[in-house]
This record gives sequence, C-alpha cells and structure tokens, in this order.
Amino acid sequence: MKERKFSAAQLQDFCETVFKAIGCSESDAKVATNVLVSADLRGIDSHGVARLAGYVKQWEMKKLNTTPDIRIVHETPSTGTIDGDRGLGLIVAQNAMSVAIQKAQNVGSGWVAVHNSGHFGIAGYHAMMALPHDMIGICLTHASSLSAPTYSLEKLLGTNPIAVAIPADKEAPFVADLATTTAAYGKLQILQRKEQEAPLGWVQDSEGNPSTNPHAPKEGGALTPLGSDDLHGSYKGYCLGATVDILSGVLSGANFGPWVPPFATAGSTSERQPPVGLGTGHFFGAMRIDGFRPAEAFKKDMDLWIQTFRNAKAVPGKRVLIPGEPERMAEAERTENGIPLIGKVQEDLHGLAQQLNIASIFAS
Amino acid sequence: MKERKFSAAQLQDFCETVFKAIGCSESDAKVATNVLVSADLRGIDSHGVARLAGYVKQWEMKKLNTTPDIRIVHETPSTGTIDGDRGLGLIVAQNAMSVAIQKAQNVGSGWVAVHNSGHFGIAGYHAMMALPHDMIGICLTHASSLSAPTYSLEKLLGTNPIAVAIPADKEAPFVADLATTTAAYGKLQILQRKEQEAPLGWVQDSEGNPSTNPHAPKEGGALTPLGSDDLHGSYKGYCLGATVDILSGVLSGANFGPWVPPFATAGSTSERQPPVGLGTGHFFGAMRIDGFRPAEAFKKDMDLWIQTFRNAKAVPGKRVLIPGEPERMAEAERTENGIPLIGKVQEDLHGLAQQLNIASIFAS
Repeated sequence: MKERKFSAAQLQDFCETVFKAIGCSESDAKVATNVLVSADLRGIDSHGVARLAGYVKQWEMKKLNTTPDIRIVHETPSTGTIDGDRGLGLIVAQNAMSVAIQKAQNVGSGWVAVHNSGHFGIAGYHAMMALPHDMIGICLTHASSLSAPTYSLEKLLGTNPIAVAIPADKEAPFVADLATTTAAYGKLQILQRKEQEAPLGWVQDSEGNPSTNPHAPKEGGALTPLGSDDLHGSYKGYCLGATVDILSGVLSGANFGPWVPPFATAGSTSERQPPVGLGTGHFFGAMRIDGFRPAEAFKKDMDLWIQTFRNAKAVPGKRVLIPGEPERMAEAERTENGIPLIGKVQEDLHGLAQQLNIASIFAS
Repeated sequence: MKERKFSAAQLQDFCETVFKAIGCSESDAKVATNVLVSADLRGIDSHGVARLAGYVKQWEMKKLNTTPDIRIVHETPSTGTIDGDRGLGLIVAQNAMSVAIQKAQNVGSGWVAVHNSGHFGIAGYHAMMALPHDMIGICLTHASSLSAPTYSLEKLLGTNPIAVAIPADKEAPFVADLATTTAAYGKLQILQRKEQEAPLGWVQDSEGNPSTNPHAPKEGGALTPLGSDDLHGSYKGYCLGATVDILSGVLSGANFGPWVPPFATAGSTSERQPPVGLGTGHFFGAMRIDGFRPAEAFKKDMDLWIQTFRNAKAVPGKRVLIPGEPERMAEAERTENGIPLIGKVQEDLHGLAQQLNIASIFAS
C-alpha cells in the first residue's frame, strides 16, 4: 500500500473512536488523541498514530487500565508523586503536568514524579502545557533499554528524552525535545525498513564496536549515548540519560534501568523479572517566570535571544534553527497539506478498525 | 619549571591568603578556597588554583567586588533570584545554593537564578551541597561564548555545564558534571600547550568545517556542541547549552548568549557592548527526596541502580563508570600523593605572591 495523506481531523476522529472502543472516557479519548496527532502534525511520525496499535495491544494484554484512578500519593507544596494506576501515559502525563502547573501557581514551581504509567507520546507536548501560563515547562521520561553506557555491552538505558519549553513574547516559544542517545530509535526504524546503513556512531555491535547495521540494537548491540564514543563525549550522553532514568524511575518509585517495561510495539513485550518498582515513570516540572523576574521583561529578552541566534552568520546554504522551529514548520505544512502515513501504518490502523469493529478510513 | 606536587593544605593556605589579600573576609576566603582546591583534588585542573590569577586580575580590573552584598531580589516560596553584587562566583554560588536548600526544606524544592556573578569554579561542587540534606542538587552556569550552534559560524554559547548530584545509601553519590560542548575548553588548552592536534569533531574552523587545530576557537572557529555535527546530534548539545544559557542568563536577568562576559584568563577581557543584562548568571536547584518518596527507600534503590550499572558486562579491559567515580578516584589519589601543578601554574602563583606581597611556596 502506498503512502497517503490524511487530515488531522480524520486521524483525530479515528483515534478518539479507537480510544473509546477500548474503554476510555470521552474526555480521556480526546486528550490522548490530541497528544498523538500532535506528534504527527509536528513531523514526529514515530510517536503519532503509528503507535495506536501498540496502545491497543497493551490493553489486550491487560497491561493498560483505560479507567485509571490517577492520584497524588505523596506531596509537598512544590513536589509530589503521582500513581498513574497503569493508565495511558498520554493521559497520565497531561494530568501530572497539570498538577505541576497548579503547584507552580501556588508556590512558584511544581515538580511531579510519576510511577505506574506507560508510553506518553512526545515529551515536548507535555512541556508545552506550561507556556500559556507564562511558565517554563520541563518533561522527562525513561523508556525501555536500548542504549549502552560508555564501554558497556549491556543495554541499560532508553532513549530517555529531555524536553524544555520556554515562552517568548512576539517570537514563537523555544521548545527543545531531544533523545539523550545519538539517534532516536525512530530514525533507526526508518533505516531498518529501507534496509539502509546507519551512519557510524549511532549504534554499536554486540562486541561494542561501531557498526552501520541499523538492526544492531536487536542483535546484541545498542544505541550509543549522545556523543557516540568516549572520545566525543558519550559519557555525557550517558550521564544525561542516567539522570533522566533516576528522576523518572528511582525518584518516582517506578522501575529503572534495564527493568523499565517495554512498549508493546518495540519488539519484545517481556519484562525483566522481578520488577524493582511500579511500571514506567516520568518527571515533570513547571516554573513560573515571575517567580524569578517579571514575565514581560523575560519574554522580551527571549525575543532578543531568539533573534540573535536565528540571525547568526551560518555555513552557506544553512541557517541556525531555534529549538522547536523544525516541528513548527512541519505543523504548518501538514495542517495545510495533510499528514502522510506509510502503507504499514495504514494497514495497522485498518486492522485496528476491524478488530474493534469500527469504521475504517484506511481500507485499501 | 617542572611539574611539582603540593598538598591540599598547602594550596588552601596560599589561596586563603590571596583571597584575604584582595579584600575577602576570613569566611569568604575559606569558602572560595574550598571550591577551588576541591577542583584540583577532584582532578579538574582547569578549574582549580590555575584560575586564581584570573580572579585576582578581575579584582585589579575592578570587575570583582570582594565585599559584595549578596541578596535575594525577587522570590516566591520555591523560587528566587539573587544579585551577586559582582562578587566572586565561588562565594555567590555557595550562597545561592544555600538559599535553594533552605527553600527545599520549607516547601519541597528550591530554585535560584543568579545575576551579577562571575566564574564559580566546578558546577559539581555546588550541586553536591544538597547531598547531606538528602536532596538532589542541580547546578547550571553559562560562560563566555566559545561554541557555535549547529551550522553557525558565530560563537554564541559557552561550554555551559550541567551538574546533578544524587545521594545513595551505602554507595557513593551519583555526581554528573558535564560541559554541553563535545570537549571542555580545559581539554583543548592542554592540547594547545602541547601543540598536539585535537580529535576531529571537537572544533570547527572559521568556515564551519571540522578541524584538528586546537587553537581554532581563537582563530575564528569554535567548539562544537555535544554531538560534534548535525548527523551525530550536535543540535541536541546546542539545545542543552541553549537551555543552560536561558536559565542562567535570561531567567536571572544577567547577560546571555554572546553577551556573557569573559573570564579574565580566557584570553579576551573585552565584553560585547552594550550589555543586555547584569554580569554573569547561574541557576541552582535543590529537591528534597522525601518530597517524592521516603529518602531511605530511594537511597537503597540508588544503591541497586549504581551496582547494576557498575557491574554491567563491559568491553574487555574497560568497565562502566558511575558519574562522579573518576573524580572520587582522583580525590583519593591526590589526597594521598598531592596535587600536581605544571610549571606555568606555579609561575603564575609565584607571581601572585610577589604582586600581593605574601609568602610564596612556589619559588623556583
């Protein structure tokens, strides 16, 4: 089946119907859908509707509770831990970020660790929830282990992203959202499908040597931490991925390191036993700008920061991008022209429609 | 003059005398000395007594106030901004971290941005202040611009380090402290002195091409952000360095980006005019572990985390290091055998003694 484009509204309708079919409330289905389709709109295809079948599979395996009782289990005025009750990470994350924002409204900042959650979509989306409140938003999550610390032959860390959203005045906000591995796994999956070689530095083979085999992480190898190798600072990517794992996993009381449960579509569905904590974890933060200085003055300075960087003299034919700019460009283009889905994703979604007995817009 | 070893006590006595000679109080001199000599003990030679002459030079240039009125100028229960009053960054940072810890004691976490400060030594030292309180410590600082964002020909960011300190139970704490550039500038300075080539990927030349010239950043080139090049994720290092700059500079009301003032020993002492904020900035955080879960349970899990990573199967002849372990190994060795100082540093310190009319232990 060949690639075809769909409007955001079409994908939203379909996703909502699927989430409701597996038992989500109307409002939860809407929230989860917005997170997923936003990833597609922003050009992060690996984290959009392509994951829908994975969530449904987790529900089938009874690993996903579609009517969770998400609740604060421990807190201070500026911190807290939330039990996601094995709910959709997409929902749990939005809930946790709301709590962080509420705490920031009360005492200047809010920091929320989460356990018993699952895959939550794109980190940047949750961090961006802080922006309309004139807050800086932070969102971290660990993921199942695909990456080996410097000199390790064992995969102990996930791609463990860091997202930071910072408001500006007239300029669009600064939104950084980055895996702490050299390459996100989604980029490797594209090469796997096309049977193309990976650039040296992205993965190592089962003996720890640099490899161009995009399948290496499934064949005893691993993704490298950001930096690629010791000489180029991979121990820094390892430190960052480790920090994300500890804040998301150890601080929340979730699993951590090699115990982080896999997402259903990531290949393996087996978990390292016995678990050392409760499900998957995340970490969220919100800081009120005016907890530090008046928000208006800050946002005007952010405009100057953004303009200074954007207008920097660049290599001929290139320019300096502001974090978040590539995703905004994709969103403008896809809102206009539609979201392209490859044949495999259309087939998966069509299969879901049949399985759940709902109307398919993906029929071949 | 050849390399010679000195005990920590010898260097401490000398540093304290120097700081007092330029007008610091007894207690400020002690605090500043502890930060500096701790860098030497921990093996980070570029940030120890080698910098002492730089601080004195800033004092001579009337850019350093040795009797600062360091005060909170804006705050909420969990956040605040401190004006360092152009004091020694070493002192201002310890003061700001104390405020963050006090706020965390009160409401679970504390976050402090700082303006009107200067070079503060090693970030990890300040982050580690949180450890005895069963808190996670975070410390960021920007620095004068040496690094070019991905595809930029202009240097817009410093080496902008991130430090995170996390307590464990029986194991030593987790202490990550990393520049967000591929290589710290100190590593390049070592190559400059030895006239050795830099590994490809550390620096770019004045046209943005990879270069092995360790002098490149002073000759129109730049350090690369962590990741080395676009294909290997340098935009992630750029995002991280940018985040550190915004939290340290824009959020605090300090200068930012290319306006961050240079440290006196970094070569140039001229500042981009007119300034866009107040001096150099930093950002500090402290979070009470028991703001999330009981500290004892967390620290036991940290032990398991550390043991799991340390015992991972590794490349033959290598092992997986825990963040902070190399610095602890250096500290044990140097406490035992002394701190080696190269001839150039001994000469600088001897010169300081003559200039300030104090006894020198560095006479040739």
